[in-house]
Amino acid sequence: MMWITWIGSTAALIFALILALYILKKDAGNEKTKEISKHIQEGAIAYLKQQYLVVGIFFSFLFILFLVLSFGLHLISPFVPFAFITGGFFSGLAGYIGMFIATRANARTTWAAKTSLNSGLRVAFASGTVMGMVVVGLGLLDLSIWWLVLNLLEVPTVEIPPIMITFGMGASSMALFARLGGGIFTKAADVGADLVGKVEAGIPEDDPRNPATIADNVGDNVGDVAGMGADLYESYVGSIVATMALGAVASLQLPGLSALQAIQIPVSIATIGVICSIIGTFFVRAKEDATQKVLLRALRTGVYLSTVLIAVLSFLLIYFTIGRSFLGVWGAMIVGLVAGNIIGYFTEYYTSDHYRPTRELARESLTGSGTIIIAGLSLGMASTFVPVLTVVASILLAFSLSGGFADPGIGLYGIGIAAVGMLSTLGITLATDAYGPVADNAGGIAEMAGLDPEVRERTDALDTLGNTTAATGKGFAIGSAALTALALLAEYGNKIKESIIHLLSDPSVSAFFEKFYSGLVEIVRSADGSIQTINMKIDILDPRILVGLFLGGVLPFVFSAMSMKAVGRAAGDMVKEVRRQFAEKKGILAGTELPDYAACVSISTRGAQREMLMPSLLAIIAPILVGVFFGPFTVIALLAGSLTSGFVLAVMMANSGGAWDNAKKHIEKGAHGGKGSEAHKAAVTGDTVGDPFKDTSGPSINILLKLMAMVSIVFVPVFIALNNLIIQLFK
Amino acid sequence: MMWITWIGSTAALIFALILALYILKKDAGNEKTKEISKHIQEGAIAYLKQQYLVVGIFFSFLFILFLVLSFGLHLISPFVPFAFITGGFFSGLAGYIGMFIATRANARTTWAAKTSLNSGLRVAFASGTVMGMVVVGLGLLDLSIWWLVLNLLEVPTVEIPPIMITFGMGASSMALFARLGGGIFTKAADVGADLVGKVEAGIPEDDPRNPATIADNVGDNVGDVAGMGADLYESYVGSIVATMALGAVASLQLPGLSALQAIQIPVSIATIGVICSIIGTFFVRAKEDATQKVLLRALRTGVYLSTVLIAVLSFLLIYFTIGRSFLGVWGAMIVGLVAGNIIGYFTEYYTSDHYRPTRELARESLTGSGTIIIAGLSLGMASTFVPVLTVVASILLAFSLSGGFADPGIGLYGIGIAAVGMLSTLGITLATDAYGPVADNAGGIAEMAGLDPEVRERTDALDTLGNTTAATGKGFAIGSAALTALALLAEYGNKIKESIIHLLSDPSVSAFFEKFYSGLVEIVRSADGSIQTINMKIDILDPRILVGLFLGGVLPFVFSAMSMKAVGRAAGDMVKEVRRQFAEKKGILAGTELPDYAACVSISTRGAQREMLMPSLLAIIAPILVGVFFGPFTVIALLAGSLTSGFVLAVMMANSGGAWDNAKKHIEKGAHGGKGSEAHKAAVTGDTVGDPFKDTSGPSINILLKLMAMVSIVFVPVFIALNNLIIQLFK
Repeated sequence: MMWITWIGSTAALIFALILALYILKKDAGNEKTKEISKHIQEGAIAYLKQQYLVVGIFFSFLFILFLVLSFGLHLISPFVPFAFITGGFFSGLAGYIGMFIATRANARTTWAAKTSLNSGLRVAFASGTVMGMVVVGLGLLDLSIWWLVLNLLEVPTVEIPPIMITFGMGASSMALFARLGGGIFTKAADVGADLVGKVEAGIPEDDPRNPATIADNVGDNVGDVAGMGADLYESYVGSIVATMALGAVASLQLPGLSALQAIQIPVSIATIGVICSIIGTFFVRAKEDATQKVLLRALRTGVYLSTVLIAVLSFLLIYFTIGRSFLGVWGAMIVGLVAGNIIGYFTEYYTSDHYRPTRELARESLTGSGTIIIAGLSLGMASTFVPVLTVVASILLAFSLSGGFADPGIGLYGIGIAAVGMLSTLGITLATDAYGPVADNAGGIAEMAGLDPEVRERTDALDTLGNTTAATGKGFAIGSAALTALALLAEYGNKIKESIIHLLSDPSVSAFFEKFYSGLVEIVRSADGSIQTINMKIDILDPRILVGLFLGGVLPFVFSAMSMKAVGRAAGDMVKEVRRQFAEKKGILAGTELPDYAACVSISTRGAQREMLMPSLLAIIAPILVGVFFGPFTVIALLAGSLTSGFVLAVMMANSGGAWDNAKKHIEKGAHGGKGSEAHKAAVTGDTVGDPFKDTSGPSINILLKLMAMVSIVFVPVFIALNNLIIQLFK
Repeated sequence: MMWITWIGSTAALIFALILALYILKKDAGNEKTKEISKHIQEGAIAYLKQQYLVVGIFFSFLFILFLVLSFGLHLISPFVPFAFITGGFFSGLAGYIGMFIATRANARTTWAAKTSLNSGLRVAFASGTVMGMVVVGLGLLDLSIWWLVLNLLEVPTVEIPPIMITFGMGASSMALFARLGGGIFTKAADVGADLVGKVEAGIPEDDPRNPATIADNVGDNVGDVAGMGADLYESYVGSIVATMALGAVASLQLPGLSALQAIQIPVSIATIGVICSIIGTFFVRAKEDATQKVLLRALRTGVYLSTVLIAVLSFLLIYFTIGRSFLGVWGAMIVGLVAGNIIGYFTEYYTSDHYRPTRELARESLTGSGTIIIAGLSLGMASTFVPVLTVVASILLAFSLSGGFADPGIGLYGIGIAAVGMLSTLGITLATDAYGPVADNAGGIAEMAGLDPEVRERTDALDTLGNTTAATGKGFAIGSAALTALALLAEYGNKIKESIIHLLSDPSVSAFFEKFYSGLVEIVRSADGSIQTINMKIDILDPRILVGLFLGGVLPFVFSAMSMKAVGRAAGDMVKEVRRQFAEKKGILAGTELPDYAACVSISTRGAQREMLMPSLLAIIAPILVGVFFGPFTVIALLAGSLTSGFVLAVMMANSGGAWDNAKKHIEKGAHGGKGSEAHKAAVTGDTVGDPFKDTSGPSINILLKLMAMVSIVFVPVFIALNNLIIQLFK
């Protein structure tokens, strides 16, 4: 029955191919637009090459480590090294393809916008859809291949999902690098271009005389397209594999639900979601002379239609496969879908200038940059309440609807299903999100190529539209991250038991282990003294658990500190480079000499590569260190603590950043004195602070939370073994 | 043996009286300094009158509620209403007396600074010492009185500490109002004075023509003196009563430690601490021509001497009272003392311009306000790591040293003792902290009275000195807040059991309760079916517990959002008022007409009163609501979640704020272009953002965490009863 995933992945990839060909057939415009687009393409490829080189070294290192751990020390499954590599590969590939098309769609969008708003949208949205389809298509493809291989090798069904979590870890590592690297690149270029070009030299935004302007446009692609692609690939795959794993464990206790069925449900929902998303995209259309408002309605129609379709079809799926007694699982999926929409709506409410919060924020600019910063931070903090409440309600509802209070296993599975449900329409929600950067680029190209201002106005309208729909997309990404991280946490709880039972089969270890962790673990023995099972009691009031909560709580803050500082340092390099070019080549500002765009791209690239390593390593090393020194139980608290503080921090950073961005745009549309006013300057400061918030640190935290959980799951046999060595020292 | 607390409190209060008389005998200067000081006194009193009126209504309301709950419904002890009132009264009184002296010491410090730096320090430090002594003296007095009364009424020893926690709740409520109200007042005045006076009208700081300048100086007193006094009174008393309560419970399981002994240890340590602090203050002296450096050394000598003294004396105390087998408890106390110093050192490291972080932050001002804000936020986030690590180490050490892994009860008591140890030298650490605002005020008076610039230089030197020592003081306050909150959390765990056993004595309730909370609570019955005890299993992986963690994690963010927004709104009112005065009375700027200082004070007062209510109510209502709807177990997770995210957020806000402040001062001393440069403007923006961080939201979070725990302890019988009503609906 797992052939269904092949259908889903093939359908998505073929649809992506058709749209890609459609885009490439479009006219890329005149010499100038083509040339600029080419610069951006070259810059983006140069960046990705360098990125994949660094990441390649990192992956090789871990690959070898995994080889040693599996074939040498027999601590982990022999499939782990390979699963890890494929996850990273496909995540990177999804980002690469998305970016390849986006950097070709940009000039074509500019040129199409000469005709009408609707024409521009069609090209940009097609590019976004390619990204959406590639992400879900490759995600399902990787799952299908591994399922096939592991079945051919006759691996028992229940053991397959934990192996697949390893490729989730590969995907997450790649995603973290892509988000951090891309985020650092784009913000360094942005700040460099603004500070020296706009402020010091006084030339307008996207002016071709600015050496950093190409890097700035490259940044949109490597950060917002390739970074986001890898990120959502990771979310998508992560939620599915975590749920599969929980399902396999839950099925052991449940009559009427086989492991195979429990594993199939999430992938089947995902596959149906692909089909619904494809159908949805056909409804994103409008008349040639459509206004922005009509286009927004068209985009929403597509998304809502897919949502309704998946709700109905998945009902039928569950009813006819696992039967009426498991309809609660369908309920959990609906909970996820609804929760995604609620979080999305409130993200928009807090960050769009159609609503009060951002309008009030814009007004704060009248009293200067200090007040707009305070108000923006306060807005972001206040905006965390509804998402947390929604996640809390989803957890309880998904857990209880699926029957968790009778059997906790199925309840945790239900929470996973809610995450899968939330991301089931990713094909189309990502499309509405990923077309924004294309429109942004198209605007830059229109400016640099000196096209009719009307074109720029249209691309700006597309960009604004993108901001609105992107808010909804972000809601789904954030909500699903919390639920997926939770599902992974539960799966870690399952894994721990296995590894400890294995460890305790040595009776000399057993007695001491039990004593050292008395109160946290209770070992249930059969009459013959062999271990039947262990019961964990991860009691919050135990200091060994409290310690984990505290350490977990601080991690996202330290991580954000590192990533924000990284942006600052990389931006500093860029500022120096742009100043150097202006000083050494006097002809640049006069317009008689071309600036060295490539130098800026390579400065930003080097900065990003150098700076992305440390925070990523933190995510991988922290849970291992805590596991080795404090034991496997403290790691549960570490994950729970980082989830609670990290989720809130991520939402705050994303929403503060989004609101500052839109407050600035609100002023640029003419409010409070418009462009060039003192209020505008204050709003620009807000936006500068918001950039690393919303494009670097905020979204990276979501990946961090999941990656830490996956690292814990994969490495648990390793750090339990090392922790045991330390315990022995106390003997 | 409890007479020892009478000695401690009497000694502290008499010493405070002597110093107060010493200050009042000093010369308050010429007509001008006297007049300005009088304006400040009147403003401060006007503020406090209004504050106590609002708070009085709030306390009356809760008093009546408690009367109903105790005498009407018999849900809580009949002493609760009265204990609550006295806690609030003494906390307020400590703030009032501290402020009364501070507003009289300011002009006297100015005048003394005409002679020498050392003379200025003597007056200002005496004022700080009065504050320190009043706080510890009144704290011990309240304890002594209640101990006497409850003993006269023959309340059993083990039941006394829980009643005393109620007066901790009164003190915390008052402290939260004082911190929030004072913080909002002072920042509103500050921003108003700066934005309209300095930026719009272009007059210097502390210029008498600025209508908000008196309000600004009043603010230092109501925020940094009265607010801090109430705050630390709460910390001091909170740590002692929480530890007493844990000791009483622990003693029930421990042979060799009576309840009375366990209760006496923390108050005895506190009393010895008072004596050591008094001795320490005598070593804060220097020659008349001493430099700033020498004075800093003198201040440190005093603090370190007290620390060493208390370490030695408390060893003797424990050795000769409870004996050698409990020396681990002394170890826990030392852990607290050392941890306080470590956190203090790192607070200074991150926020003083003698070290790299703040110097680098100052350099960020060269690229504008955007980069200094990003760097400051990043600095604050990074600075959270060491304090969390220190607290984590303290928890484990204090718990294990005192024997927690053999008997958890004594381990939790050890954690409480660590908090008491950390605050034992509060008499002198608070003195080094509380003299800063006096020096700040003295500088303002020197400026307004047009004294010799040399005087201002000296008061500035005193102010800088104060900033350095205040950093250490903050470390103690923050660290002890985390440990005290933890101790309170543990005590809540104890209280819960009692209330549930009481509830379950009704068998019809029992069956259903057990079913509804299956997995979280296990009821152990005797052979005859009566309840012996209950075991709680607050398992992190249970969704009902996870929900609490999430809700707890978000609370400090929402609270901070509210308090920062409050500052913004109150500041807006002030800006309007100052603009109005400048517009209506043309003579003000010319210097021919006096501005209406009182109007500004009353604007700020009204703003503060209006805005402080909502965040305070949040702290009280949140745990009750969660308890009623999600049950008493989720509240444990709520408290743990808010502690983990709140502690980190509080440290971050305090340190970001402190670093911005000192980066600005660093530039004002001449770095990066000095006063008036573009870099300075950027640094001022940083400082504006940092003000509500470090003086309003950050310190309030510390109180919030403890207040929520105390509310939970006091209200637990109430919300268990209501929760049970809700459960019955599911029947």
